[in-house]
Amino acid sequence: MNARPGPGADAARVLERCHELDRYSAHPAHLERTHLTPQHARANEVVAGWMADAGLRTWVDAAGNVCGRREGREPGLPALLLGSHLDTVPDAGSYDGMLGVVMAIAVAQRLHDVELPFALELIGFSDEEGSRFGTALLGSQAVAGHWREDWWDLRDRDGVTLHQAFLDFGLDPRRVHEAARQPHELVGYLEAHIEQGPYLEARDEPLGYVTTIAGARRFRLSVVGEARHAGGTPYARRRDALVGAAEVITEIERMARASGDADEHDGCIATVGRIEVQPGAVNVIPGRADLSLDLRAATDEARDAMWVRMERRIQELCAARGLRFEAQERHRAPAAPCAPWLTDAVVAGIGSTGQPSPLGLWSRAGHDAMAMARITDIGMLFLRCHDGISHHPDEAVLPEDVEVGLDAFEAAVRATATSYAARALRSSPA
Amino acid sequence: MNARPGPGADAARVLERCHELDRYSAHPAHLERTHLTPQHARANEVVAGWMADAGLRTWVDAAGNVCGRREGREPGLPALLLGSHLDTVPDAGSYDGMLGVVMAIAVAQRLHDVELPFALELIGFSDEEGSRFGTALLGSQAVAGHWREDWWDLRDRDGVTLHQAFLDFGLDPRRVHEAARQPHELVGYLEAHIEQGPYLEARDEPLGYVTTIAGARRFRLSVVGEARHAGGTPYARRRDALVGAAEVITEIERMARASGDADEHDGCIATVGRIEVQPGAVNVIPGRADLSLDLRAATDEARDAMWVRMERRIQELCAARGLRFEAQERHRAPAAPCAPWLTDAVVAGIGSTGQPSPLGLWSRAGHDAMAMARITDIGMLFLRCHDGISHHPDEAVLPEDVEVGLDAFEAAVRATATSYAARALRSSPA
Repeated sequence: MNARPGPGADAARVLERCHELDRYSAHPAHLERTHLTPQHARANEVVAGWMADAGLRTWVDAAGNVCGRREGREPGLPALLLGSHLDTVPDAGSYDGMLGVVMAIAVAQRLHDVELPFALELIGFSDEEGSRFGTALLGSQAVAGHWREDWWDLRDRDGVTLHQAFLDFGLDPRRVHEAARQPHELVGYLEAHIEQGPYLEARDEPLGYVTTIAGARRFRLSVVGEARHAGGTPYARRRDALVGAAEVITEIERMARASGDADEHDGCIATVGRIEVQPGAVNVIPGRADLSLDLRAATDEARDAMWVRMERRIQELCAARGLRFEAQERHRAPAAPCAPWLTDAVVAGIGSTGQPSPLGLWSRAGHDAMAMARITDIGMLFLRCHDGISHHPDEAVLPEDVEVGLDAFEAAVRATATSYAARALRSSPA
Repeated sequence: MNARPGPGADAARVLERCHELDRYSAHPAHLERTHLTPQHARANEVVAGWMADAGLRTWVDAAGNVCGRREGREPGLPALLLGSHLDTVPDAGSYDGMLGVVMAIAVAQRLHDVELPFALELIGFSDEEGSRFGTALLGSQAVAGHWREDWWDLRDRDGVTLHQAFLDFGLDPRRVHEAARQPHELVGYLEAHIEQGPYLEARDEPLGYVTTIAGARRFRLSVVGEARHAGGTPYARRRDALVGAAEVITEIERMARASGDADEHDGCIATVGRIEVQPGAVNVIPGRADLSLDLRAATDEARDAMWVRMERRIQELCAARGLRFEAQERHRAPAAPCAPWLTDAVVAGIGSTGQPSPLGLWSRAGHDAMAMARITDIGMLFLRCHDGISHHPDEAVLPEDVEVGLDAFEAAVRATATSYAARALRSSPA
């Protein structure tokens, strides 16, 4: 067995590695690493190096995900997958995604000499946020075999298609299907992630487990009026797309807030994170405004019912101003419940650190685990983060939380092994 | 005397030249020519060629304006200036600015062999719209000797400073003051321009004259909240800069509309033409929104009183949402009344075309004439445009309106000459 570093050393290394990844950013002053960029390639190389150090065979799959594998008790067994993502939003924090990947590597290192009833695989997904192409989970959806041909025409802000981005990254778009994994190859998928919400901190506990992941729908909303001179056009003749969009934005918040907020299981959260107006000059009435809408709820039913009401109301607002309204759905994910047996393993893992009755949370944020749920069982471990802040440079975790998180994650993998072996025994011929 | 082309030929050539200038655009599919770009340089060259064909000596001044001059009865006399601008908004029409420059060239051509009591100068201003640097009238303010040193640090969307743009254009920023003209060098400034409003068309008349030009104030409004994860942040913890900005935009329209609209002399027009949010990702609550505000009224008093009320109200809206609000003034121009004697000349010019009692309008749009009013008398001729549309590719003028417009413009210059000669006679020693 490898020499085990002193208490806290693993957590320190995990945090160090998160900060090393900060370097691979499109901007020197703040973190932005998006899908299939040169920064992404560099992060993949560095992570593959760490995986190799932990004794894993590594590769980059046909969708740009960085992968590693060590065999179990015998070669070729189905794999338990541990992972998260390596892409970020613009002006991101250091932990959303990266922490889960780096913790998985530390757990693999700790289990280096432990014989397991399954292979252990690690994965750093290439795209979870959807920041570059507006469609999220491109990396994990490729692994789940859920690829859509029309995604190839998605364009980033510079007009580069996803197809071209694959080619520029050295990937062959025709081979993206080779990234897909088959259910029989997999035991399950475990992911550690910062909570990105305030609930664990409010309860003063470092760790929690996820019950289900809310499924987001994302839309591009377009409000179309008429560009005209800002001075010469009386109000009666204006069809100002931005004033219309402003009413839409205010109404979206009002409706979602009135639904009971995110604290209730049937409440919705709706966010407009992007807006662009055309032509975008100080002295021209905007002729067109394009907005993003991100809509989530604990259940798909609550979310979809909200969209029906919201779309009707937006149509009314725009019609009253002589504006045209169009909505284009860009992303839709069903809510993904965690598998009871993996959740039990995560709870047992948390319990082994001396936290007996951890909090079960529904995840308001989407995760790669949602895509993986299409092909295998999933379980998720949440780590407390400061003030619920995420998608922001102030994102922060405590070193001591990472330390117990590593212990819990390792223990959860061990519990999964025990449980898996027992299940295999029960299902084998008597 | 030159052979005079048949009726309509001058107007046809004017329109042809406007369309030739469409070619010098930053985008192949739509017209965008902003200050000190390569397209601007090319337009200056072409316009200088036309000026030379009309018998003028040409140069580009120290602020990037293209200029031409022919002497009057004797060399070195003060000059009557005819001009407008050659820069455009994004996705512009073909006539706003360019029509006035090209018509001035046609008038100079017509007066080629006419002895005048002043020199005749033409000018194609380099920046009227302010589309590139957010500050308008940079070309005419340089000519008016009203240059501010802090303008050098203005930046375009790509972060290029005005200082750097001068250097890139081959201009020496230290010599910008050489573009300034002295009052004693000038007789006055006449500008022809499309109305950019619906009033002439509503009256079914091709031409009108301007009584005064409304002075705009322009601001950059910043709403600052906190960027956070779109999923994990309950409404109670959100400080969404975009929802705050949306309330601000709606309130700005409501207040300006309630002031009596633009049809009344004390009404205000307020337009938010630009918005940018940070970080601008689909799944991140916007932490910052920056807006432009363009505010105009017939009198400076009405406009300034509105801004005081508006700023107070915006502060209240932002404070209620825990958002910080800042306003930075980027441009302020006083209302500029036209000089009675030049207005008489313009009215006489219109009258000579068989339109006896033309409409006098206050210009809701800003014009280079506003800056020129600081150093000389101004007069303006308005041409009817279709449906009041401007700052849009559908901007349109009728060829027959351009034809009578040329006749009126030429007659206005002749009337100015008569009036100027008579004034000179009166003021000379008996």
